[in-house]
Amino acid sequence: MMQADELEIRRLIAAWISATQDGDVDTVLSLMAPDVVFLVAGQPPMAGRDAFATKLRALLGGHTISAHSEVDEVLVDGDMAYSRTTLAVTVKQKNGGGASGGGMTRRGATLSIWRRLGGQWQLTRDANLLGGPA
Amino acid sequence: MMQADELEIRRLIAAWISATQDGDVDTVLSLMAPDVVFLVAGQPPMAGRDAFATKLRALLGGHTISAHSEVDEVLVDGDMAYSRTTLAVTVKQKNGGGASGGGMTRRGATLSIWRRLGGQWQLTRDANLLGGPA
Repeated sequence: MMQADELEIRRLIAAWISATQDGDVDTVLSLMAPDVVFLVAGQPPMAGRDAFATKLRALLGGHTISAHSEVDEVLVDGDMAYSRTTLAVTVKQKNGGGASGGGMTRRGATLSIWRRLGGQWQLTRDANLLGGPA
Repeated sequence: MMQADELEIRRLIAAWISATQDGDVDTVLSLMAPDVVFLVAGQPPMAGRDAFATKLRALLGGHTISAHSEVDEVLVDGDMAYSRTTLAVTVKQKNGGGASGGGMTRRGATLSIWRRLGGQWQLTRDANLLGGPA
């Protein structure tokens, strides 16, 4: 049972990456709780699925996102779990972007909290420790 | 029962801050699991209590640390919990430090995983999202 939960969370992480690359915002939103909180270095917490949706839709309006995630660990205990990944994200302007047309890549660790809510694992807290562009 | 666990974790966070300010490394180490992992923006994960001890002892050799932590939330589910804080840390050179004698303050969020191991809550994963010096 524990193993099935770990595999399910790994599947959700892969689905998140895949949907982000496809620009499929609705699928990304379906993976998080409404009261999710996102933490990024040097910025105040961003609270709520709606705030995330607004930001992601704005970014995808003019950019494509490609991402690669390596799952370092998933640990499940009852109805709570955490995952750690090493993530690389490249954001590229859709119209070519001139000199920076190759896009900007950031790499680093993530630490995420998952909870089983209504029988479904959902992201509830996320810390993104990606550094500046290399 | 749940409430007692939340209060206990809040007490451990306060003990961590207090022991750090006192330079009491042994007490800080007693609050974390041997296989703890620390995440900081833009750096690879730092694994293990021993690595943390080495780094903290080196810093305390020439500096004093003062810190203020506001606990934003603690959520306990069985034998796993997470906490979020808003943390401000000031590191000051012991010998005055000349022009930078006032110390360097960094502020930001933390996200930490706690597990009840052998009946005792211990820090097992920690993401430090403090920004650069203000």
